[in-house]
Amino acid sequence: MPDKVILAVDALGGDHAPAVVLEGVAAALAEDEGLELIVCGPADIVEPFAAGRARCSARPTTEFIDMGEHPAEAVRRKKDSSIVVGCRLVKEGAAAGFYSAGSTGACLAAATLVMGRVKGLARPALTTVIPSPVRPVVMCDVGANADCKPEYLLQFAQMATVYMREILHVEDPRVALVNIGEEETKGSAFAQEAFALLKAQLPNFAGNAEGGDILAANFDIFVTDGFTGNVCLKTIEGTSKTLFKALKEIFYTNAKTKLGALAIKGGLTGLMERINPDTYGGAPLLGVKGACIVGHGSSSATAIKNGIHTTAEVVRRDLSGLLEKAVSKP
Amino acid sequence: MPDKVILAVDALGGDHAPAVVLEGVAAALAEDEGLELIVCGPADIVEPFAAGRARCSARPTTEFIDMGEHPAEAVRRKKDSSIVVGCRLVKEGAAAGFYSAGSTGACLAAATLVMGRVKGLARPALTTVIPSPVRPVVMCDVGANADCKPEYLLQFAQMATVYMREILHVEDPRVALVNIGEEETKGSAFAQEAFALLKAQLPNFAGNAEGGDILAANFDIFVTDGFTGNVCLKTIEGTSKTLFKALKEIFYTNAKTKLGALAIKGGLTGLMERINPDTYGGAPLLGVKGACIVGHGSSSATAIKNGIHTTAEVVRRDLSGLLEKAVSKP
Repeated sequence: MPDKVILAVDALGGDHAPAVVLEGVAAALAEDEGLELIVCGPADIVEPFAAGRARCSARPTTEFIDMGEHPAEAVRRKKDSSIVVGCRLVKEGAAAGFYSAGSTGACLAAATLVMGRVKGLARPALTTVIPSPVRPVVMCDVGANADCKPEYLLQFAQMATVYMREILHVEDPRVALVNIGEEETKGSAFAQEAFALLKAQLPNFAGNAEGGDILAANFDIFVTDGFTGNVCLKTIEGTSKTLFKALKEIFYTNAKTKLGALAIKGGLTGLMERINPDTYGGAPLLGVKGACIVGHGSSSATAIKNGIHTTAEVVRRDLSGLLEKAVSKP
Repeated sequence: MPDKVILAVDALGGDHAPAVVLEGVAAALAEDEGLELIVCGPADIVEPFAAGRARCSARPTTEFIDMGEHPAEAVRRKKDSSIVVGCRLVKEGAAAGFYSAGSTGACLAAATLVMGRVKGLARPALTTVIPSPVRPVVMCDVGANADCKPEYLLQFAQMATVYMREILHVEDPRVALVNIGEEETKGSAFAQEAFALLKAQLPNFAGNAEGGDILAANFDIFVTDGFTGNVCLKTIEGTSKTLFKALKEIFYTNAKTKLGALAIKGGLTGLMERINPDTYGGAPLLGVKGACIVGHGSSSATAIKNGIHTTAEVVRRDLSGLLEKAVSKP
């Protein structure tokens, strides 16, 4: 039996909450016998769900943080929201990690404020697996820190290296800095400083990457500030979505194209699955004490299930402990 | 007959120079009887090409700036390179505009240094048409200014508005700021300052855009610093390229998929044409005195031809004059 892990889950997170969240919770419990889940949300939802269910308990909450609210403010004000309560369960030791597909900003704010950071780390960073058709790559930061110092990026790279090794089992990941040219002298003043620091202090640093290198998987880890990383991530998702929509229109043009589309459907479904972010189920906020994984708002039950599994894996591998050892101390 | 326009063209610009450049020059001359071109490059290439050709002359040069060279340094050192000479022809009034598919950095440096800026403008900006499957959109800056002040972005937006109106005939383009959230309070300190300035001073400002809005064409103009813009542009190009490569592999799986691909080939070719940057032939450096358009290194003869036509159009519409009137004076 896998090691026992207790996690808190936000029943209200995501566009299709609570239904798909509860479906994901049930599926995760069925697949992992070492798992125990505390479901946080309104009593009339979480209590009937947990009643009589093995390794599942309810933690009723009375408040809800909406996607549109100012994250830090909402977290300060709504102390009995499912997000804040979930993070507090980790802080108090009742749970070892927290999973939510709710407001990314609120999860980041709550986890950072409530759980605290691993020792020596300047800023936790939102890290995501980008499912390239070639092979999965990791990008960090994708939105936790819109304004960064070059030193943060060194720590982001060190944390992403540990994550990729422990969770994605890539033994020797190569890190690239997102920039606007390959040469050392390229980019903004910030990018040039970050380059010099990474070159001097990160053994697995492989140089500058351009936007085109990301989905082509020309490196394993793409390190950048949270502004650029978020724009990149959304640009990749949006470009794929727009192109697949245009393809679909071509497929539906007439009887002939519909037949043609049928012939390549199997391969296309395979490609869509390979590049589906649901496979990875969420983005870890690396560097908080404990584990916090944030899922896409549009997460399916499968995405929720996979996100919970990833959270359990992060706890079982003691990622917090490994990150604390990995980051350069200022 | 269209108005007479004299332009300088860099015979050495691009991965397939000089052959495709000269092919593009010949095609442009054939299509536009008002056009006269001065072809800059090694004497043994440009002189035989121009000899006996109507509305075409040769301007022999002895130096060449390579894609790998440090742009500003190369421009200072290589005063007899095709790029510097082309820009000087504009400065001296022998030509009204310059087109090159060579080193973007060198073209930007040479045009800015040699041609000078329109009055009141802080920084010229590299502007590009992104061929979305929905409809073309404009992004500015895509690489001329890696470090920006919020005031620059206001001027970029004003210039891009003029460009879109005059050259792409979009009467009332809506400008969005590239950011990491829709709300006014989102983003880096820089993005928040730029938002406030655009909101206060740009009548056609429509708010924040995220990465996913670009290829979806949810706005007409995407304004950003040159670092973010370049990363976005390369990410879109790279994502498309990687996805089409994966699609091609699916098509070639077996006899059935090959037949299927054949059925949708027409539609797919149409889509590829719509999103082909060659259609637009190059990115104008908006804000220099005169006109400077930089083509993709991989430009085809068609792209070169279209780039020359765009340069002529920019001159005929007196874009420099209109930009000078459009930009807010500090």
